[in-house]
Amino acid sequence: MTMALIKKPTTGMKDVMPREMQIRDYVTNLVKETYKTFGFTPIETPAVEHIENLSSKQGGENEKLIFKILKRGEKLVLGPDVKEEDLVDSGLRYDLTVPLSRFYANNAAQLPAPFKALQIGPVWRADRPQKGRFRQFVQCDIDILGEPSNLAEIELITATTTLLGKLDFSDFTVRINDRRILRAMASYSGFDESDLDTVFIILDKMDKIGADGVREDLIANGFDKACVDKYMALFNGEGEGTEYIEELAKTLGDHLPEGCALGLTGIIRSVERVKKADFNIIFDPTLVRGMSYYTGTIFEITMNEFGSSVAGGGRYDEMIGRFTGNKVCACGFSIGFERIITILLDKDYQVPGAGRKHAFLIEKGADPEFVASVMEEAAKLRESGECVLVSMMNKNKKFQKEQLEKDGFSSDNIKEFYHSEFRN
Amino acid sequence: MTMALIKKPTTGMKDVMPREMQIRDYVTNLVKETYKTFGFTPIETPAVEHIENLSSKQGGENEKLIFKILKRGEKLVLGPDVKEEDLVDSGLRYDLTVPLSRFYANNAAQLPAPFKALQIGPVWRADRPQKGRFRQFVQCDIDILGEPSNLAEIELITATTTLLGKLDFSDFTVRINDRRILRAMASYSGFDESDLDTVFIILDKMDKIGADGVREDLIANGFDKACVDKYMALFNGEGEGTEYIEELAKTLGDHLPEGCALGLTGIIRSVERVKKADFNIIFDPTLVRGMSYYTGTIFEITMNEFGSSVAGGGRYDEMIGRFTGNKVCACGFSIGFERIITILLDKDYQVPGAGRKHAFLIEKGADPEFVASVMEEAAKLRESGECVLVSMMNKNKKFQKEQLEKDGFSSDNIKEFYHSEFRN
Repeated sequence: MTMALIKKPTTGMKDVMPREMQIRDYVTNLVKETYKTFGFTPIETPAVEHIENLSSKQGGENEKLIFKILKRGEKLVLGPDVKEEDLVDSGLRYDLTVPLSRFYANNAAQLPAPFKALQIGPVWRADRPQKGRFRQFVQCDIDILGEPSNLAEIELITATTTLLGKLDFSDFTVRINDRRILRAMASYSGFDESDLDTVFIILDKMDKIGADGVREDLIANGFDKACVDKYMALFNGEGEGTEYIEELAKTLGDHLPEGCALGLTGIIRSVERVKKADFNIIFDPTLVRGMSYYTGTIFEITMNEFGSSVAGGGRYDEMIGRFTGNKVCACGFSIGFERIITILLDKDYQVPGAGRKHAFLIEKGADPEFVASVMEEAAKLRESGECVLVSMMNKNKKFQKEQLEKDGFSSDNIKEFYHSEFRN
Repeated sequence: MTMALIKKPTTGMKDVMPREMQIRDYVTNLVKETYKTFGFTPIETPAVEHIENLSSKQGGENEKLIFKILKRGEKLVLGPDVKEEDLVDSGLRYDLTVPLSRFYANNAAQLPAPFKALQIGPVWRADRPQKGRFRQFVQCDIDILGEPSNLAEIELITATTTLLGKLDFSDFTVRINDRRILRAMASYSGFDESDLDTVFIILDKMDKIGADGVREDLIANGFDKACVDKYMALFNGEGEGTEYIEELAKTLGDHLPEGCALGLTGIIRSVERVKKADFNIIFDPTLVRGMSYYTGTIFEITMNEFGSSVAGGGRYDEMIGRFTGNKVCACGFSIGFERIITILLDKDYQVPGAGRKHAFLIEKGADPEFVASVMEEAAKLRESGECVLVSMMNKNKKFQKEQLEKDGFSSDNIKEFYHSEFRN
């Protein structure tokens, strides 16, 4: 009957060990508690989604990474001409945005307006396995559906930065831009509408290759030198805040839709005033963000000590409408849950309020009455929220106690119970 | 660009709405808090598992219900002779026990001994869709690996009943039996070893068809009448507790392995003494429990008001060894998470400690300074853990306030903010 089975998780997936799990649980609870105070409501969608919805071109490159699920029973027909798409009718979700759109289309009538959704759950992408990047990982999104004003952005940014502050992060930067400013800057400089994607892909490399690198790259891609120079000059604005935006708006004139600059400065001013953590919010005209579904403001949080971004989001006013048929404005902010967990693990973060841990070791062969008396003592501590591990005493008690100390039981809190002493 | 997509979840799966989500989150946290005080450590395994592990015959009927995942890229070869098993190398887990065995085999060296695991997470079964039964549902298991003594059973039962008590359940019954008693009763009565599965399937119907029904069914299945009558007489023991077990053990004599009866009475006595909730623990010689991997004690919790069982478990000392090669004794208890959520929803359970909810409505067109001043007022309440929903005022304010009241905002806590008043 011994059949040795495969011990390792499937490619690119991982087992979560107790130490990491403690931090994941703590962050998850803090996320829920914090976001709830901002009026966000937790919801959940199934892991399995219609393949049609997953392939609707809203997921960009992620659509190539879908874990596809085989049709079942009579629906599955094999044969000489069978194609991959004949075999599949669903797949694992690769993000929480497509399922949220479907959820809202399905349930809007029962939901408040505006609806503030909080989702935290696993997504799956069959990415090439690499260090620190897994094929199953948790995403954590907040979204406000049906709020056209910039109150949405202010609330999302305030909630997210409040959360990061509670995790003892400080000295981080919220960078904000607007897709409409990106487009206006390019069209003002003379780039063709059809070239914008190429231009933005190059612009997105600014933090890696610098302004000179972007300029060279644009010219190498065959763009007109005068046009490139006019464009690059726009990035030399004064300051990082609202003055830059106001100056830029004057320059761009009619290229920029009305109210766009005012909206952005309003967000920055409000966030500055309300903020409850130690961070800066700056206008960053080089911020692009990849997903094509963004229609207005886009924002990102970077931490000076960790390089890469830990949160990103923006406004996507067109996407939900693809499901519902009616336009529903939407704005979301997603924290890099896995990135944050990695940072906390690397820092050896100590979860606050993790109660005292006791170990009770019972002499072997103790009778039920004695075991019950030890359990009663354990129950008292447990009722007050403390952790009590009750174990039988091993032959090698010294080793057992060493192991317990390694697992975080201080020697003062390891107590031995001898039946013989009890009897006397 | 409008492509209406599929709004409903995939067959047999569901969107979780805010009201249900609140209860799910509350129960999840209570589970984690309570079990942690008993020394259980949360762990997590991937949703996707090797198809070989899922098809290892430990999952019984569930193996027929696997959601299978298509191989990817070059591994997927289609052609005239392609068979279903050529298309698949992994699937979604259908329980948490197979992944736990793999997890333990993979990580035992880094884990304490005994290891007390807590898992709470979704599993998937492509069951025939029916009311109240979903293809994705949450399981919640605690398992103690490497504890041969009945301390494991006592801890599992005490932890689970304590949890149910905290959810305000009372007057429930823990039924306990031992697979070895089941076998001894049948072999004492003269049934063949090879007939035991059939006998137990019939015995399992006791609570539906009664003792007479079981007797008739056994005879209808061709079993010897004398043997059936000898068997049925064993179920007429006195009382529901330890006296019955002691009496039965005398009758069964050598058919019962040494220590088995003593172990069971020890569990019942200890649980009785330590218990922190209002329940009974009784010996039930008709308790069978389906899964073939159980080797010793088996137990179940039934609630008098709700009929079906809300938790089940037992000892399975052979299973982990199939992965590790070495015998590792194991004992687990699983609560019916979805069943409990349904009961609480039906009861209109009010989650304790859900803080006050405020709604702040801001006049439209307010300038950023004014919005920021409202946000500052909201921030104060949010810091103290209260929920504040900040919204722009709708044209139809009356309707908006009615909706808010429906969503649990009391009219006293809906506050209006007028820019005009602020200006004056």
